[in-house]
Amino acid sequence: MDLNNETIDDTNNVTIDDLENLVEEKKYSELKTYLFDMLSADIAELIDEVPLRDALIVYRLLPKNIAIEVFSMVEVERQSELTSLVSEEELKNIVDELFFDDMIDLIEEVPASIVKKILRNTSPNERNLINQFLKYEDDTAGSLMTIEFVDLKKNMTVSDAMNRIRTTGVNKETIYTCYVVGKEKILEGIVSLKHLVLSESDMIVEAIMTDDFIAVGTQDDQEYIADVFKKYDLLSLPVVDNEMRLVGIITIDDIVDVIEEETTEDFQIMAAMTPSDEEYMSMTPFDLARKRIIWLIALMFSATLSETIMGHYKGVTIQIVILTSMIPMLMSTGGNAGAQSSTLIIRGLTLGDIEFTDIFKVIWKEVKVGILLGLTLGILNFGRIFLFSNNIKLAITVGLTLIGTTTMAAFMGGVLPILAKKAKLDPAIMATPLISTITDATTLVIFFTIATLMFLG
Amino acid sequence: MDLNNETIDDTNNVTIDDLENLVEEKKYSELKTYLFDMLSADIAELIDEVPLRDALIVYRLLPKNIAIEVFSMVEVERQSELTSLVSEEELKNIVDELFFDDMIDLIEEVPASIVKKILRNTSPNERNLINQFLKYEDDTAGSLMTIEFVDLKKNMTVSDAMNRIRTTGVNKETIYTCYVVGKEKILEGIVSLKHLVLSESDMIVEAIMTDDFIAVGTQDDQEYIADVFKKYDLLSLPVVDNEMRLVGIITIDDIVDVIEEETTEDFQIMAAMTPSDEEYMSMTPFDLARKRIIWLIALMFSATLSETIMGHYKGVTIQIVILTSMIPMLMSTGGNAGAQSSTLIIRGLTLGDIEFTDIFKVIWKEVKVGILLGLTLGILNFGRIFLFSNNIKLAITVGLTLIGTTTMAAFMGGVLPILAKKAKLDPAIMATPLISTITDATTLVIFFTIATLMFLG
Repeated sequence: MDLNNETIDDTNNVTIDDLENLVEEKKYSELKTYLFDMLSADIAELIDEVPLRDALIVYRLLPKNIAIEVFSMVEVERQSELTSLVSEEELKNIVDELFFDDMIDLIEEVPASIVKKILRNTSPNERNLINQFLKYEDDTAGSLMTIEFVDLKKNMTVSDAMNRIRTTGVNKETIYTCYVVGKEKILEGIVSLKHLVLSESDMIVEAIMTDDFIAVGTQDDQEYIADVFKKYDLLSLPVVDNEMRLVGIITIDDIVDVIEEETTEDFQIMAAMTPSDEEYMSMTPFDLARKRIIWLIALMFSATLSETIMGHYKGVTIQIVILTSMIPMLMSTGGNAGAQSSTLIIRGLTLGDIEFTDIFKVIWKEVKVGILLGLTLGILNFGRIFLFSNNIKLAITVGLTLIGTTTMAAFMGGVLPILAKKAKLDPAIMATPLISTITDATTLVIFFTIATLMFLG
Repeated sequence: MDLNNETIDDTNNVTIDDLENLVEEKKYSELKTYLFDMLSADIAELIDEVPLRDALIVYRLLPKNIAIEVFSMVEVERQSELTSLVSEEELKNIVDELFFDDMIDLIEEVPASIVKKILRNTSPNERNLINQFLKYEDDTAGSLMTIEFVDLKKNMTVSDAMNRIRTTGVNKETIYTCYVVGKEKILEGIVSLKHLVLSESDMIVEAIMTDDFIAVGTQDDQEYIADVFKKYDLLSLPVVDNEMRLVGIITIDDIVDVIEEETTEDFQIMAAMTPSDEEYMSMTPFDLARKRIIWLIALMFSATLSETIMGHYKGVTIQIVILTSMIPMLMSTGGNAGAQSSTLIIRGLTLGDIEFTDIFKVIWKEVKVGILLGLTLGILNFGRIFLFSNNIKLAITVGLTLIGTTTMAAFMGGVLPILAKKAKLDPAIMATPLISTITDATTLVIFFTIATLMFLG
């Protein structure tokens, strides 16, 4: 991975820190000049990353026509925070101008009081539609689609169609694929703008449209929809109900996000975590520990099977067999905790959510997560061993080892991928196998050190 | 994951098997009728999956205008096989009609004799360009870009521009973004077809183009380019040289493939394998073992650190300490081998490369891979232990255990994700943590069974 790439864009020499300084020094007109030169996606990134108070100032400095485009690119959590601060009139402007699918995402995020304000600014018709869209389950076609598409009739000529695109196209999410609908909005065909532009202006739409198209239902799963986009190289895809009535379209930009989201989910499940679509840097240690602990407990208890197996073969010296029989469980718990941390950090680095400068924040967060996890696991094991073997020394040894091991594993899993990236290696090499080899060795050192103190000391 | 989704498309009731039967029974006219109703991407899938002889028959049944679209969607390995069978004239047709980036991919795949034939059918100008493109490194912007774009001049009117699109657009990879170039092909601006269509026809291109655009260099890494597409929600992106001369464009459909390829690479690296972009089902057990063995050996030797650590604490009965000191290495090697298998299978299931019906093929392949890996690791360890401890019984025990453990781990890693998917669970749950917990327990059983036979039997 090469970190030295730069887009060829002359505004890149202004950093977020520079802009934040301008806000703090209240140099608004200078700030405005910089903003004027920036691309909307970059302004949105700025609004995402600065403190909320500054974000509002930046947003208000934007010209009206840019403001809404920037707003639609800001992350939905930040959008929600902004809507709670803006005036009723600014909110009305946002609601009027936002694409329908973006508005639905926003409504799902904001508190009830803001939802009321938003609905107050919509027509009864729109309110009906919003209610209907809110009912679609997450991760289905219904939740991804938008209603801003160009619809044509099959008896139109190409020049009629082009006129319709000219008059209605400005507010559509895409005009590159147009949808030919008949009675009761039944979808009859699809025609690309490329086809329209390349055809004679007196041709009839029916003659150039394709009626052999792919459509999906509102309940279809987003992972399946991403597969359809990939297989057929689509830019957009119609969504129909059971009677083949066109209810919305899905565009490729949302699908790229879906692919990313599903991949992140796979990574998390593969490292034994409850999947979450929140970004690593925005989660608290307590949240992180909560998503991880149940899996660690389940895996740890299944690892105690090893103790039973080793118990069958005891014969010589009981003490040493009992002690060594704990090793597989301790090692695999350490390995699992390390794997969870490294997977989260590797994914965060890939998505650009974590930077090298975050290293101390990550270390501190992982140490706290590790202590939370280690305390839970340590207390559970102390109880289990004390109850079943009545061996208090062993119970204390194992309990303390788990606290040490888990904290150390979380620390390693957090810091090693970041260092790998800094050293221009692919952070993915710091995944389970290497992390668990490192944690195996340190677990043994911790365990035998504590055991020596407890049993011989 | 819901596997019952179906695209709404009435040709779906014909399966690949049905079509293969038609080929075998030589019912070509019936086959032709079915093909006529199918989408190009589906025909391409058929050509990918049937035996090569049948693939050629299907390809030759296609009407000329469909044939090339289908050909461009066929996987490049199969394209290469087909080019070695078609006539010189068919090859000329393919070369003439294929998009430039697809032709480069094909040339990189076919044997030298076919390359010669292809080059014979191109003009000297084209040959120069091909040579230049072949020099771009894999995974860079240069290797992804195509030269089929629409170029405009800034002093054109909108209606001039639309005329140019109409006359040159048919063979362009996209007409939705047009590139405004000046002297010496310097890129001066970008204008979308949406903008052109929505503007008055006497406007000047310069007035509506944006000169604040993103461009990348030919050497930029594909992962970085994918990030740019995601951040700015692009459909295409210009590639320029150091003098800002436009040399090509990259389109979103290629980027979706890049995202998939990079994700697969991450998964493989995270499971300690040498990354490969070949599909699981098309790799031989020997290939698979070769990509995995070096990592297993390296990790296994680092796991022997545990033996040294445990050796420090021996005091009571030497025999049992020596035996148990082998356990961490055995368990982590089993876990690593299982993790490699499950990662490959999980990714194959996600990409649709592996189906439930492949389960016996996968089992048989994984067992063969497991034996290959186990033999290598077992012999290495036998040698290591015999040389350093001169304990032949221990060397045999560890050697045999490794063969058994690795084979069993590869089997579990191969079969469990497929069963999980069949049971409508996410196959990703069968990743490292669960697999290693299962292999840990079975490793101990194998080890102690063999050890009991060797030392007590």
